[in-house]
This record gives sequence, structure tokens and C-alpha cells, in this order.
Amino acid sequence: MAFEHTAKAFDDDLQELTRLVSEMGGLAERQIVESLDALIRRDTTLGDRVVAADSEIDQLQRMIEERAVLTIARRQPMAVDLREIVGAMRVAIDLERIGDLAKNMGKRVVAIDSDFRPLKLIRGLEHMTDLVRSQVKSVLDAYAAHDLPAAMAVWKGDEEVDAICTSLFRELLTYMMEDPRNIGFCIHLMFCAKNIERIGDHATNIAETVFYMIEGQQILDKRPKGDMTGFASAAPGN
Amino acid sequence: MAFEHTAKAFDDDLQELTRLVSEMGGLAERQIVESLDALIRRDTTLGDRVVAADSEIDQLQRMIEERAVLTIARRQPMAVDLREIVGAMRVAIDLERIGDLAKNMGKRVVAIDSDFRPLKLIRGLEHMTDLVRSQVKSVLDAYAAHDLPAAMAVWKGDEEVDAICTSLFRELLTYMMEDPRNIGFCIHLMFCAKNIERIGDHATNIAETVFYMIEGQQILDKRPKGDMTGFASAAPGN
Repeated sequence: MAFEHTAKAFDDDLQELTRLVSEMGGLAERQIVESLDALIRRDTTLGDRVVAADSEIDQLQRMIEERAVLTIARRQPMAVDLREIVGAMRVAIDLERIGDLAKNMGKRVVAIDSDFRPLKLIRGLEHMTDLVRSQVKSVLDAYAAHDLPAAMAVWKGDEEVDAICTSLFRELLTYMMEDPRNIGFCIHLMFCAKNIERIGDHATNIAETVFYMIEGQQILDKRPKGDMTGFASAAPGN
Repeated sequence: MAFEHTAKAFDDDLQELTRLVSEMGGLAERQIVESLDALIRRDTTLGDRVVAADSEIDQLQRMIEERAVLTIARRQPMAVDLREIVGAMRVAIDLERIGDLAKNMGKRVVAIDSDFRPLKLIRGLEHMTDLVRSQVKSVLDAYAAHDLPAAMAVWKGDEEVDAICTSLFRELLTYMMEDPRNIGFCIHLMFCAKNIERIGDHATNIAETVFYMIEGQQILDKRPKGDMTGFASAAPGN
């Protein structure tokens, strides 16, 4: 009876943690979409809203950390249950970083004052953001459903994002070479493209956390990388 | 007697965690210095070594996380003791991110193939790195000694690093405008300057963790920022 009581209490704690992670994930996804939206439409009001909304994500991360730690201390879960809790903490840290990266893009909206914005660039950024957002969504679904194959699909899909980022950098470099007046604006877009790529890296981290939760060990394969393709003069790096 | 035994076991666990964090901190400090060294001397061998050494830091972070979680589960520490353990986990996460940022600079060494490297730029980067490295060192000492005033001094010192970063960005922008052949090289240095600034942000995070460990609550003041000073065309942002 005491055991059943403990098991029930633990399940409740875990369910609450999963709910908080899912709430945080929803906020992070929205921040990704809105920061790019603000950037493309040069909507400083929306940019400011993205910046302000970040503190909500930060608070959720602290809350998840606190509850996770209290759950471990109170319920003393072992093995697989412990990994569930550590998994929630890890995912929350990645989501908090995603929020920071979106906030950084939101801050740049006000600084991008150029009227020059080639359609090809905008389309590239949009495509990259769509991909990354769907990676974040898929990996959060995989986390909630304990779906290892789905998580591994995200893990492998990061390569495409890195390749688009490299091609965007090449293009931005061309515009900068063509006309020095493009430089300020292009630098901001480079940092934004890099931020979106990093959001993709965090989706990959979450996929690795799902692997750890299910398999009980760290993933050992090297993650695939698509951004090292001969763009030596200004490769985005990693 | 049983209580004493538990207290002793807990102290041993905590001591081991602190030792691991300090080992990790030493490695991270070395990575900061060596990545800049590699960059300035264009020493690709050293750059590669920085990249390779990052996995050691990553492993330590995982180890600290695992031990922290096991300690919480086994010893069920409460209040102040729990905060000690959570503090170690948080510091390890910041140190892991510092390692990533140094690794990113190490990767850029091979891409920077320009012979053009104005002394003023190099001095600026060196000055910024010195400041940031001493912040990391001071805050790790403050963490080990539970020295809140020392941690708060680091927390406030971040402003100067941000200001140097802004001034470096302005200078890099000038070089890019002057001659398009400088653009590729300058972009890499911008990303490096931004990385060093971010390392400073992680030192500030660690200062906040020390506050949390000692005061038992999150710091509520807004952290000081020195990088918003009217550099609208290519501000480094945050």
C-alpha cells in the first residue's frame, strides 16, 4: 500500500514535469516563428514581444529544475524513472537556450534598418526556420511519446539545416562584397542564420536525451554535420 | 550514528562534486586561453587540439550530472544541501557551454587565412579574453569559497566586456567597409568576439548560481549590460 502510494505520487510528479516541458516547448516554438516573422516584416513591436516573452521560458526552466530535484529527493526513483526526470531537466535546458536564441533575433529587428532585402535571402531564412521549427516540434512529440525512431529521424535531419545555413552565408557574403552598404544588415542576418542553425542543434540535443531516456546510455555516434562544405572564407562553423 | 554516517557520506559526495567542477573549470579556462592563442598565432595544430579537448569537458559535465542526481536520490538532502548539488549541476552546464564556445573559436583558426591582422584588433581581442578569463577564474574561486561579494563583483564586471565587444564590432565593420577582401576574415573575428562575450555571460550565470546557493533564491536584479550603446548598424546584440 505504501509502495503503491509512492508510485502514484511519483507518477503525478512525473506527469506534471512532462506537462511543464510541453508548455515550455509550445512557447519556444512560438518564439521561433515570431522572431523570424518580426525580422522579415521588420515588425519591431513583435520583436519586442519576443524579447519580453523570454522571461516566461526562463521561469519555466527554473520551475522544472526545482520540481525535478524535489521529486528525486522525495521519491528516490531508480534507473529508468530517474532517467525520466533527468531527461525533463535536460530538455528544459535546451528549450531555454532556444528561447535565448529567438530573443537574440528579436533584439536584432530594431537594428536592421536597411530597405535592401533580396527575396532569395528571405526565402532561405524562411525555409531554414520552417525546417528547424518542425524539427523542434517532432523531437518534442518524440520526447512525449517515447518514440526513439522519431527522435533519431530528427537527429539525422540536422544535416540539411546546416547545409542551408552554409549556402545562406555564402550568399550574404556576396551581397557584402558587392556593396559595403549591405554589410551591417547582412551581418545581422548572418547572426540570425547562425541562431536558427543553433536551434537545430538543440533539437538534436533533445533527440540525444530521448535516446538516453529510452536506452539508458549516452548516444555514441558522431552527429552528422552538413556545414563543413568548403566554405572556408566565412563558414558558419559550429 | 546512522545520521552521522549519512552526513559523512553526503559530505564525501559533495566534496567529490566540487572537485569535479573545479577540474572542469581548469579545463575550460585553458580552452579559453588556447583558443585565442591559436587564433592570434594562426596555429591550426593548437586549434585542432582545442576542438579535440572539448569532449573531455563534455564528459565531465555528464559525470557531474549523474553523480549529482545519484547523490540527491541516495542522501535525500534538504534545503541548503540540495542547493549545493543543484549549484554544481548548473555550474557544470555553464562550463560545458564555455567549452563549446572555445571549441567554435578553435574551428575558425583553419578558416582565417588572411595576412591582414591589424594590431589594434588583436590587442582588443586579447584584452577582452584576459578580462573574461579572469572573470571565469574569479567566479569559480567565489563558487569554491562560497564568497558572495566576490561573485557579485564578477556579476557587475560583465559590463566592461560587453563594451569592448561593441567597440571591436565597430572596428571590424570599418575594415570590412574599407576593403571587401577583409570581409571573410572580419566575420570570423566577429563571431569570435561574440563567443568571448558569451563566455563572459556564462561567468555571470555562475555568479547568479553562487547567489542562489548562498541566499536560497534567484537573483532578481537585472544584470548590467554594456553592449547597447548606439551601435545600431551592427551591434553584437545579446
